[in-house]
Amino acid sequence: MAWTRHHVLSLADFTPEEYDTVLQTASSFREVLSRRTKKVPTLQGQVVANLFFEPSTRTRSSFELAAKRLSADTLNFAPGSSSLTKGETILDTAKTYLAMGTDMMVIRHKEAGVPRAIADEMDRLGVKVGVLNAGDGQHEHPSQGLLDLFTICSLLDANTPRLGLLQGRKIAIVGDILHSRVARSNIWSLTASGAEVHLAAPPTLLPKEFADFVTEDGLPRKLVVHWSLDPALTDADFVMTLRLQTERMTDHLLPSLREYHQQFGITRDRLRQCQPGVKVLHPGPVNRGVEISSDLMDDPEFSLISQQVTSGVAVRMALLYLMGGGKVG
Amino acid sequence: MAWTRHHVLSLADFTPEEYDTVLQTASSFREVLSRRTKKVPTLQGQVVANLFFEPSTRTRSSFELAAKRLSADTLNFAPGSSSLTKGETILDTAKTYLAMGTDMMVIRHKEAGVPRAIADEMDRLGVKVGVLNAGDGQHEHPSQGLLDLFTICSLLDANTPRLGLLQGRKIAIVGDILHSRVARSNIWSLTASGAEVHLAAPPTLLPKEFADFVTEDGLPRKLVVHWSLDPALTDADFVMTLRLQTERMTDHLLPSLREYHQQFGITRDRLRQCQPGVKVLHPGPVNRGVEISSDLMDDPEFSLISQQVTSGVAVRMALLYLMGGGKVG
Amino acid sequence: MAWTRHHVLSLADFTPEEYDTVLQTASSFREVLSRRTKKVPTLQGQVVANLFFEPSTRTRSSFELAAKRLSADTLNFAPGSSSLTKGETILDTAKTYLAMGTDMMVIRHKEAGVPRAIADEMDRLGVKVGVLNAGDGQHEHPSQGLLDLFTICSLLDANTPRLGLLQGRKIAIVGDILHSRVARSNIWSLTASGAEVHLAAPPTLLPKEFADFVTEDGLPRKLVVHWSLDPALTDADFVMTLRLQTERMTDHLLPSLREYHQQFGITRDRLRQCQPGVKVLHPGPVNRGVEISSDLMDDPEFSLISQQVTSGVAVRMALLYLMGGGKVG
Repeated sequence: MAWTRHHVLSLADFTPEEYDTVLQTASSFREVLSRRTKKVPTLQGQVVANLFFEPSTRTRSSFELAAKRLSADTLNFAPGSSSLTKGETILDTAKTYLAMGTDMMVIRHKEAGVPRAIADEMDRLGVKVGVLNAGDGQHEHPSQGLLDLFTICSLLDANTPRLGLLQGRKIAIVGDILHSRVARSNIWSLTASGAEVHLAAPPTLLPKEFADFVTEDGLPRKLVVHWSLDPALTDADFVMTLRLQTERMTDHLLPSLREYHQQFGITRDRLRQCQPGVKVLHPGPVNRGVEISSDLMDDPEFSLISQQVTSGVAVRMALLYLMGGGKVG
Repeated sequence: MAWTRHHVLSLADFTPEEYDTVLQTASSFREVLSRRTKKVPTLQGQVVANLFFEPSTRTRSSFELAAKRLSADTLNFAPGSSSLTKGETILDTAKTYLAMGTDMMVIRHKEAGVPRAIADEMDRLGVKVGVLNAGDGQHEHPSQGLLDLFTICSLLDANTPRLGLLQGRKIAIVGDILHSRVARSNIWSLTASGAEVHLAAPPTLLPKEFADFVTEDGLPRKLVVHWSLDPALTDADFVMTLRLQTERMTDHLLPSLREYHQQFGITRDRLRQCQPGVKVLHPGPVNRGVEISSDLMDDPEFSLISQQVTSGVAVRMALLYLMGGGKVG
Repeated sequence: MAWTRHHVLSLADFTPEEYDTVLQTASSFREVLSRRTKKVPTLQGQVVANLFFEPSTRTRSSFELAAKRLSADTLNFAPGSSSLTKGETILDTAKTYLAMGTDMMVIRHKEAGVPRAIADEMDRLGVKVGVLNAGDGQHEHPSQGLLDLFTICSLLDANTPRLGLLQGRKIAIVGDILHSRVARSNIWSLTASGAEVHLAAPPTLLPKEFADFVTEDGLPRKLVVHWSLDPALTDADFVMTLRLQTERMTDHLLPSLREYHQQFGITRDRLRQCQPGVKVLHPGPVNRGVEISSDLMDDPEFSLISQQVTSGVAVRMALLYLMGGGKVG
């Protein structure tokens, strides 16, 4: 189970072995998190810089906590009061953090491709700094894809979560798929697992040709597009809902929140057509009563939302640990 | 001296034993703070999240330092760049921090009752997360009340600060009492101690019926309302001034800062009617020359303001320690 | 090599011995930074407060990292959400951080003299808190001056960087010298070293009488003013470029960025008149193609920019260490 990946930028080229290594490493760290002292000395004296050019409290806190629990020091970059407003390029900002002695950079940016550009620059400079994509535009959000995978696989086998557990399962992804970096990362991981992935959204948020990108690598991947909810939900084992950006309304891509909820909102009633024991995921933050009904969100029989947040810290610890050259414990 | 309180939300129902436990624990921590290495490993591996929905540098820094000196890791929530602006409810934000593995939450919010609502939700979920109210609207600010109490009691007996020391003392609270969460917390603790508490403010900032709330619990409490300064100051042992929100002027609750200072500002001259050795407190930040004359504020013979700030760190360490299940050392 | 300086506010009165102590201490810390675990326990349990009244990400991160690598706890003051907007004076803010138990304060402010005013107040109060000027208005930025000095001297002798190495060297400082605190600090250190310092800028950014301030102390200092670039570059060993504040354009002190670059921008071509092996420095953030051509900035044969950033952490560790009473290791 060797790990040779220095950067985590996308799940498009993740191998089954890499998925399993992340899942098993995260599983070890989840055990650490259940102790009273939730810290290991792995990254003592190392520096993790959170360069969130696009602000985020939730994801930044999750990465910050993951780094601190590995005993790393953290630096938080605040775009508002930064050199960016003084005309510095993003690559120059990253090189400044490199020169200060940063060991790993966690990057979020509203433009797709920025984390890769920074990773390429680090490679070109011949330095051993790992770059982790924490969300780039509408492209990918690989740590979210991995934490969703870990949440689902842990439910199926808490001790040995692994990709193969999803073989033949039906998973529905519902919502604004077109604009979602979370959806893209999840589609890569879930189709790689051998699951059957069904996408459901209004046509404005899911063009017919959308799903073509996953066939680029020539591997057989099971991906079906629906413009209504029910065929996606029928016999589904897991339902992943996506956050609706309310600004899509002003873009005239959606009629109203109310109408969206009537057509694509997940409710207890609608889940009856799924497999018994179906579970619902959402990357958060949730618009209650829009993507998912409020009572369903709070029902631990169905909702995995809080498990996803907990998984996030374990998976991010695993990624930082593996990128930092750790051995699988 | 057992401590069973999991949350610290209000001083309304604090028992004399609880006050004394906080005072004595804070006294131990003050001793730690006088060492060169001002750190103890008590909360090693625990996470304290500062969820300051209402921004504050001073109080957040004090809590952050208290947590770090107990060796906890800290997370700071920045409302500006947060999920709140993305439509998430406050309870969902708190549950996200819970799911990440937060052990204690320090909450400030401009609406009264938010910390209690979060604490109730944590209890409903059956989790052992402690919630500390760091100021909610015009309701309470219990850690400020306790640090003021600690400051006063430590002056009367540095080694064994205890509630009983205030029995029969006269304490004046002066300023915008109506809108002050600090005043409400102080009124609970000071009247509980057996001190005689005199409130002084213009009628717009202190309605006649204001003081009725402390009689709700049926205990005998000595609280007197004045609409002028002198009767409150006569023979007082301690004078607590409150911060004047200058926006009260635009609300037409006050004529001018100058006139306010003439009527209710504390000066060296006015203190002559107090007990010899009278001391002045202020929760900060001070408007110099408004609530208190500038020279008085800087005079260590009278001013306890910097001791209050120092007490704040010790008292907050004590609260986090006790809420975290520490034993009284 | 004793160190008695409690505050670092200006380089105007630095002695040759002090320069050499900083250079040699920074050299030891640079060795620490090259290890995998880049941390020493020197300031364990001490608190370094970064009071950046003028926001800055780059310099604050550098100080924060320096403090963390000495194992100090750090507090970051965020002016936006602070008591300052509530009418508190700057001295009162500093005294609040003092009372919390801060051991060292790193201060940046847009007005010259603020760090000294705070240091004077600390001395007046008889407390052992060290104050470090991290940039005050157009006055000084001593840690930048020292890191530039360390960068240059380390190039001349990596093992034993010392002031004497610059004796007789020619150093050009180019750009908006009038408004630059970096230039002022560099002029003090470089002229103290016995180097010949040549300033080059348009007359609006470099009045004739500008350089008079360095003669105030009566020491012989070699400082020449030019209103064009070439005489400053001829036979120069080092070229220090300064950041151009683009707001100077709106102040009508400069025609256009393009014209500025044509007259004072550093390019590979222009460097031909310098000494072989000439090196270029810039305090960052760089406006690429304005102060310096983009390709030159990225050419490690000429550019010392990333070494400056790395030096910054080592020099700031050295300053905090020395101010904290460390012994020279």
